[in-house]
Amino acid sequence: MPAFGKVVVCGVGLIGGSFALALKAAGAVAEVVGLGRSRAPLEEALALGVIDRIAADWADAARGADLILLAMPVGQMPPVMAALAPHLQPGTIVTDGGSTKSDVVAAARAAFGAQSQSKVDQFVPGHPIAGAEKSGVTAATAGLYRDKRVVLTPLAENGAAAVARLAAAWEACGAKVSQLAAADHDCVFAAVSHLPHLLAFALVHDLAGRDNADQLFGFAAGGFRDFTRIASSHPEMWRDICVANRAALIKELDAYMAELLKTRVLLASADGAGLETMFATARARRDLWLDSLQPPSGE
Amino acid sequence: MPAFGKVVVCGVGLIGGSFALALKAAGAVAEVVGLGRSRAPLEEALALGVIDRIAADWADAARGADLILLAMPVGQMPPVMAALAPHLQPGTIVTDGGSTKSDVVAAARAAFGAQSQSKVDQFVPGHPIAGAEKSGVTAATAGLYRDKRVVLTPLAENGAAAVARLAAAWEACGAKVSQLAAADHDCVFAAVSHLPHLLAFALVHDLAGRDNADQLFGFAAGGFRDFTRIASSHPEMWRDICVANRAALIKELDAYMAELLKTRVLLASADGAGLETMFATARARRDLWLDSLQPPSGE
Repeated sequence: MPAFGKVVVCGVGLIGGSFALALKAAGAVAEVVGLGRSRAPLEEALALGVIDRIAADWADAARGADLILLAMPVGQMPPVMAALAPHLQPGTIVTDGGSTKSDVVAAARAAFGAQSQSKVDQFVPGHPIAGAEKSGVTAATAGLYRDKRVVLTPLAENGAAAVARLAAAWEACGAKVSQLAAADHDCVFAAVSHLPHLLAFALVHDLAGRDNADQLFGFAAGGFRDFTRIASSHPEMWRDICVANRAALIKELDAYMAELLKTRVLLASADGAGLETMFATARARRDLWLDSLQPPSGE
Repeated sequence: MPAFGKVVVCGVGLIGGSFALALKAAGAVAEVVGLGRSRAPLEEALALGVIDRIAADWADAARGADLILLAMPVGQMPPVMAALAPHLQPGTIVTDGGSTKSDVVAAARAAFGAQSQSKVDQFVPGHPIAGAEKSGVTAATAGLYRDKRVVLTPLAENGAAAVARLAAAWEACGAKVSQLAAADHDCVFAAVSHLPHLLAFALVHDLAGRDNADQLFGFAAGGFRDFTRIASSHPEMWRDICVANRAALIKELDAYMAELLKTRVLLASADGAGLETMFATARARRDLWLDSLQPPSGE
């Protein structure tokens, strides 16, 4: 018998679709039910076998569900949680795949804590550190989470059994599960994920607006391609992440601009030794990090 | 009979070594002679069959050479050119693989133009847009330049025949050759190559100095890995590029910091629509560029 009976995926894109496919590949789920804000991706997910059924509404979806994954852009969490909350049954675990956690936790408290009897203990926040600049259900694969990290940021209200059961679901997908406090999560990912995305978007946007943009892109090569890969990420998803985590992100952006100003001083004074020290320090730290990746992790 | 008899490669790293291997693979060279500032890489290049012989000195290397490629960090160009100049024979073409061109041209004028009879017409500046964060002769491959661009920035003094002969050498390596004025080259590459390298080095350097650096790198994933790939580039090479092209690079850095300040305003005002427009514009421009890459070009 599969570990999970009915699993609901709200938002059948890369994250939700891959979760469904991975659980199915592991034989860990009996039925995957999908729902979302628009019909076409759901039909596509059904045709691809990513989900087994499209739910009529939240009442239908939530009935008898073991696990519900909310896999929409984080800006959609408040209305979706509000729609789900009245139908959420005892024993169902709800989680999410959002890249920011403090805002998602606040939305969950508002939606699930506002019920006549609080259901917030049923919501275990999560963030699978896997993704790609590709989006949509056609990009979903059963192997997306293999050897990737999933960070859970449990609430004080969550029971140990619910956290363990959710961790087991992600482990069935091949992921490595760890835990952080939500605020720490948001600071860490502002630095190593949200800021780099913002920087890549900004560079391409800057160059795209130039009079000689065609010439510039005409000579851009492999280094530029990799540096800007994440600038092909989903604009709405990243809009929501940046708005939700803007306090931590602005802090990181300011630190980075201070670093750039220091670098500008080195350039303006033609301080080759200073530049070389900075570059060598960066290279050594990055190479140390690469060595520690066993196996390479994705995003 | 091969198109080139004796080809000299000064600096048998990724760029010089791959040039030698590619010419050999194409049957376009009779003998490759190597020289450089230290012995060990030359011995390694000899053992790997990248070069056929190590030159005793510039007198030995330059004698009867058809083509000489200077493939060292651009900061080494002035002393190397000064050492080569007295030995440079009529009919030999000299070129370089430097990522900056105005400074290399100035060095060439100083070294070759200072001879009793100017030899500067024999120097045809070039920049193969191929490379990797890997460096050294062990990273060299015969295929590095296949379908990659090589930009020549000829001098007014260069004869058409010399430029055509150098272009033919690069085409034998599989590259696509184009031309730019040296100053234009330096502005274009400040934007699409030098600045991204600086930004990647700066991000890793910034995070490496944090008290919680281990935690931060512990959660860094695939997006970070690609964004910072070029931060594993050769520190000395990039020191020289940044110093040589600092005027254009500072201009680009200032434009980028202005873009970041505009982005900061969007963040601070939680302007989701503004952020989404910026992200969508960047994604669309990048995707347009990717579509134009036939086949993908390298760096």
